[in-house]
Amino acid sequence: MTTTPLTHIVGAGLIGASIGIGLSAEGWRVTISDADPETELLARSIGAGGAPDRNEPDLVIVATPPGVTPDVVSNALNTWPNAVVVDVASVKAPIAEVAARSGQGHRYVGSHPMAGREISGAMAAQGDLFRARPWVICPGIASAKAVAMVRSVADALLCDVVEMDAEAHDRAVARVSHAPQAAASAVAAALGPLVENDIALAGQGLRDVTRIAASHPAMWADIARLNKRSLVETLDHIVAELDAVRKADDIGAAMTALIDRGRREVARIPGKHGGAKREWEAVTVIVPDRPGHLVRLLSDAAAVGVNVEDLSIEHSPRQPVGLTTLWVLPQSASELVEALEKGGWVVAGS
Amino acid sequence: MTTTPLTHIVGAGLIGASIGIGLSAEGWRVTISDADPETELLARSIGAGGAPDRNEPDLVIVATPPGVTPDVVSNALNTWPNAVVVDVASVKAPIAEVAARSGQGHRYVGSHPMAGREISGAMAAQGDLFRARPWVICPGIASAKAVAMVRSVADALLCDVVEMDAEAHDRAVARVSHAPQAAASAVAAALGPLVENDIALAGQGLRDVTRIAASHPAMWADIARLNKRSLVETLDHIVAELDAVRKADDIGAAMTALIDRGRREVARIPGKHGGAKREWEAVTVIVPDRPGHLVRLLSDAAAVGVNVEDLSIEHSPRQPVGLTTLWVLPQSASELVEALEKGGWVVAGS
Repeated sequence: MTTTPLTHIVGAGLIGASIGIGLSAEGWRVTISDADPETELLARSIGAGGAPDRNEPDLVIVATPPGVTPDVVSNALNTWPNAVVVDVASVKAPIAEVAARSGQGHRYVGSHPMAGREISGAMAAQGDLFRARPWVICPGIASAKAVAMVRSVADALLCDVVEMDAEAHDRAVARVSHAPQAAASAVAAALGPLVENDIALAGQGLRDVTRIAASHPAMWADIARLNKRSLVETLDHIVAELDAVRKADDIGAAMTALIDRGRREVARIPGKHGGAKREWEAVTVIVPDRPGHLVRLLSDAAAVGVNVEDLSIEHSPRQPVGLTTLWVLPQSASELVEALEKGGWVVAGS
Repeated sequence: MTTTPLTHIVGAGLIGASIGIGLSAEGWRVTISDADPETELLARSIGAGGAPDRNEPDLVIVATPPGVTPDVVSNALNTWPNAVVVDVASVKAPIAEVAARSGQGHRYVGSHPMAGREISGAMAAQGDLFRARPWVICPGIASAKAVAMVRSVADALLCDVVEMDAEAHDRAVARVSHAPQAAASAVAAALGPLVENDIALAGQGLRDVTRIAASHPAMWADIARLNKRSLVETLDHIVAELDAVRKADDIGAAMTALIDRGRREVARIPGKHGGAKREWEAVTVIVPDRPGHLVRLLSDAAAVGVNVEDLSIEHSPRQPVGLTTLWVLPQSASELVEALEKGGWVVAGS
């Protein structure tokens, strides 16, 4: 086995600490620091790495908030003239430009591990946080040696490495993440005029659309500033789609056309293992909301060897039952319905 | 027990046939008809009701596509001068106006059973389709006798009756359903410029936001036309929220402000039994994607008496493991994490 690089992590939040725990568990020599002494101590106490020492690291992983990442990256390139520097911010082009301007671009690799949804802080850190998740690497003008070193980090954490151009990455995340966040928040904000009794009419559809609207605004200011061009471009596109409906002479035809355009694109979103979700079939069952019932339902499904690809629970606002939808392969659907009805379940639709 | 009204259902699609099956199962005398003879025969074959006969019905339930519902309602009021007429379209004010103009408004009750997500057609019909779901009733100028008769339908189907003003209903569904559908479709449509490799960066957030974008456009043209005023009003609101970001001098501050507005409103969306979802805590576990694992996970949760309030599965595009998040009451979270880790589960965050 090849020797692993002496690694220093700058920033001990969820991402930095999780990388530290994961690499340390793999036997890497890791040190970790954070602007906040308490966070740094906490990260060390949970095995994210040791105290910074005098040895120059071979690899510096910058896991600071996106807003300060460009400065931290160029400082790191200056502080450690022989180290490879990689950052994990969710916007890549502006940071690559700073690294290039420093004249040290061959030692800088941009990266973006896609993880950490709905959880944050060192306390939530886990070495497995990134396992099986995409880890984008933007080589830019980095040397092959530098890229290989960053790949070895992603490999050690069992990530799914995806190489991309930095601008392409930023355009992509604007459309798959940044603008959808703004749209979900806008749909939620538009609930303002409704009284509680009106909002009680909300179904699973609204809950799905607005789920990410509940996420904390932390970091979004930085992300929006760093990815402003692509974000605005995408918001312009989304608004143009909505204008086509709200300004149409025949709003019915316009709505149908918009939904048709949306269906074509949503079918391209990979479901599990790259398979599009539309390839699954929904089996909806009425489940009393008491501990154990969901278990019984899934046991009955597993008993006939049906694998549940996905599962969603739809709640009734006031009554103690829920509609649970099991997403299964089409060839399994009828078999599942039969088995569940034999088992006494009320199948509301499939 | 009081005698149930002789009931005739016009329209044998998912909603009409499901009402017919449910009422017939409760011992009601039900006849059902459909413009399409095959659909009508199918509905009868699955127990949705008998063939129309010479008896004048006490109650006529109009379950036709929304676009033709106003005409069908006024025809029904003329054809059966003593019957109570109720419709189930998802827009209410325009139909109430037509009924009022006919001078027979005291015999008309608007209603909207909230069900049928992602499934359609008589084949999917089930008597339990509406159980525990909200059924909105808009009495308008209807007589107490007429309203009581419609309530008896909702009661027979074990629905959660909600009385509302028709205009309030239409304003509400525009914001909780119609405009969110347009927004989800617009976010999906904005994926157009991305190549497959870019879309592979999509996470669960985008999947949640765009899930309803996969729904069939059927009926949306009618709904948009009938509810045009409220739909446009809501789209204007959503676009104004997006304008505040894309046209801001400081896009970072604007994004934070939008997310803050959204969080305030999304917290008002009832989760289970009227409880807001934010009252729950997320426990995220790495689950190998093989039959039975989800069962084991939920069994281990049930074993320590923890009730799973909601559950979401996040898939990795290319690898055979998924992140499963269990939503539980805050006081149960730590106990659950402890139990799961004892059980050998990898908890990625809580």
